[in-house]
Amino acid sequence: MPVNLKAPVAQDLAPVAGIRIGVTEAGVRKANRKDVTVFLLDEGSHVAGVFTKNRFCAAPVQICREHLASHSQSIRAIVINTGNANAGTGADGLARAHATCDALAGLLKINAQQVLPFSTGVIMEPLPVDRITAGLPAAIADAQPGHWAKAAEGIMTTDTLPKAFSASATVAGKTVQVTGISKGAGMIRPNMATMLSFLGTDAAISPELMPALAKTLADQSFNRITIDGDTSTNDSFVVVATNQAGNAPITDWNTADGQALMAALREVAQKLAQAIVRDGEGATKFIQIEVEQGRTEEECRLVAYAIAHSPLVKTAFFASDPNLGRILAAVGYAGIDDLDQTQIELYLDDVHVATKGGRNPSYQEADGQRVMKQQEIVVRVQLGRGSASTQLWTCDLSHDYVSINADYRS
Amino acid sequence: MPVNLKAPVAQDLAPVAGIRIGVTEAGVRKANRKDVTVFLLDEGSHVAGVFTKNRFCAAPVQICREHLASHSQSIRAIVINTGNANAGTGADGLARAHATCDALAGLLKINAQQVLPFSTGVIMEPLPVDRITAGLPAAIADAQPGHWAKAAEGIMTTDTLPKAFSASATVAGKTVQVTGISKGAGMIRPNMATMLSFLGTDAAISPELMPALAKTLADQSFNRITIDGDTSTNDSFVVVATNQAGNAPITDWNTADGQALMAALREVAQKLAQAIVRDGEGATKFIQIEVEQGRTEEECRLVAYAIAHSPLVKTAFFASDPNLGRILAAVGYAGIDDLDQTQIELYLDDVHVATKGGRNPSYQEADGQRVMKQQEIVVRVQLGRGSASTQLWTCDLSHDYVSINADYRS
Repeated sequence: MPVNLKAPVAQDLAPVAGIRIGVTEAGVRKANRKDVTVFLLDEGSHVAGVFTKNRFCAAPVQICREHLASHSQSIRAIVINTGNANAGTGADGLARAHATCDALAGLLKINAQQVLPFSTGVIMEPLPVDRITAGLPAAIADAQPGHWAKAAEGIMTTDTLPKAFSASATVAGKTVQVTGISKGAGMIRPNMATMLSFLGTDAAISPELMPALAKTLADQSFNRITIDGDTSTNDSFVVVATNQAGNAPITDWNTADGQALMAALREVAQKLAQAIVRDGEGATKFIQIEVEQGRTEEECRLVAYAIAHSPLVKTAFFASDPNLGRILAAVGYAGIDDLDQTQIELYLDDVHVATKGGRNPSYQEADGQRVMKQQEIVVRVQLGRGSASTQLWTCDLSHDYVSINADYRS
Repeated sequence: MPVNLKAPVAQDLAPVAGIRIGVTEAGVRKANRKDVTVFLLDEGSHVAGVFTKNRFCAAPVQICREHLASHSQSIRAIVINTGNANAGTGADGLARAHATCDALAGLLKINAQQVLPFSTGVIMEPLPVDRITAGLPAAIADAQPGHWAKAAEGIMTTDTLPKAFSASATVAGKTVQVTGISKGAGMIRPNMATMLSFLGTDAAISPELMPALAKTLADQSFNRITIDGDTSTNDSFVVVATNQAGNAPITDWNTADGQALMAALREVAQKLAQAIVRDGEGATKFIQIEVEQGRTEEECRLVAYAIAHSPLVKTAFFASDPNLGRILAAVGYAGIDDLDQTQIELYLDDVHVATKGGRNPSYQEADGQRVMKQQEIVVRVQLGRGSASTQLWTCDLSHDYVSINADYRS
């Protein structure tokens, strides 16, 4: 059961002028599933993306990188299939991903390099490109601005709920919309799947700001979540700005307009990222880890990930066991060579559990137990060596995680 | 149930001249448990050790480092208690560990700096030093050369079996003995525990070689195992050479005598390390991961640990699911930035499952399935970029792992 997450209501999601979305059932792997989604972008849209760092990256990721390098200001379509990740498929996989782009470009009368392909599902199986291309006309025919909720459903693999959020901002007197969808945390049954997210805004943004924007947003959202530390071969996050809201293009984020728009973009990206954790495999708790007083953000991140990835810490959360030793031990082995344990402070929500690296004399286990029983928990570690900080979001490690991932591929 | 591991038989363990071992029930945490063990070393023994890199290292680890820095050629006693790790205990914990050394030194009429203290058990609780010191006279009275099996039992926490092995070698015409014990993989219920290992030999070894010897042996044994990636606050490995075998002291490992002795030492250290994995929490499989053809041993290690720590890979082993994608994905995110996926070869035992980064055309899933059902599995990855290699040992991730670690501390 997802932790404090509900399916989006279609009416709550604002269309983004310049983006139409169509979804169809192409039978990629199973019948009667929405498994091919297309985003059709008006001319004038600018696109940026960040992609998995996994060196075993999938064929579509390689093609997205190429097409964005040359055509980021003229991308006109995005095509996403579920059921097959087209990863670990070598040269043949690249050819099949190119064939998908070619087919969609032919139907839309655009260049194949104006198409970004995405795939998620089983890996090391040949992409059934014929079924995908056969489904494209129906997907195009279905295209509507109001289909964000349908798209959130169309890109699901083993997510238990679709994930979509909207926000708006006032930029130079104009209301701009931000809407996005995401799917699937980390690596998912039946094989491994993928985090995919697509975020659109009608705001006008100077094209030079776009590549850094995708990176900035990812660093504050999708790069701050972890389910199990596994990094998929297909992870992708794409931002589309259609430039149709009529605002003067943002050229600097350090302006009132820039900050208003950035806040709306960040809000949606963070909600989409957190939704992935809330729907993490077997998750029963949503945990925010805050690491403060580091010398650098990087060392704060090391500590936060050590805590978030420790199977012992994660099972303690599952058990609602205020097992402080496990958290402190993870801090200790995070990789800060000159860490002074006598400077460490640890809080569970409002409860001050450890001070100067040892148990806080006034700490009562009943207080720790109370916090650990919550569905949402904040773990705060102070390193006492500087002023940098970071935060990330994770979930617990439950019996269901093992069951889900130990099930034989279906 | 441990994987292919049996309790040692006392008669199979060779005494080491110059080492006597005594064990007692001191009631450190629970009654009727062997929980305090002393090693009494004859004058002339030389000692070296390697210790946890966790910055939250326990008080006894800090004291061991100090005492070895000044007295490695005159250590006369080792004292180990279970039931309490004396970690996360600050200045008070250091004082209590010193008090243990003082008490044992007083009874043995030696200097406190000639004692090495070790603790394992719950953390962030005050060490019950009075109970430990009260038990020391009985432990000393119990001291016998033949008590290695008893010591293996005396240092157990939640290990399901004691772990002890012997080997011998002929060095300059003399038979030398090597015997060692170990306990507890990674972090263990009820809180977190510790890997401890003590290895003794009667061989004469030049004292200058000792510190590097402990490191060399650990790098080939205990530094090649992982259960869950968690590093305890107390991990310690100690080598004692009593110099009583009558051989001319080893001054160079690159001699026939040096290599014969090193082989025996390595054999025992590796068996002790592997025994920890075989008895890992919830383990049902023993997995050897071999990474070959790397540019450096370090990058091979990155890949091996990425595979060994992936919860998805580990659950696939538990499920006997030949889920190759998970292994290849772990190779991909291990951190080799310029890894070329088209060069990767993957074998499960004798089965060649992936070639040039994709599925081997001749691979049959039934063959992968056959290997995955075994209790012992070799995973071999070839990176195709050099001639370095490494190997490590790990276990699977089972429901029992979650159950054991999610149980509330008892």
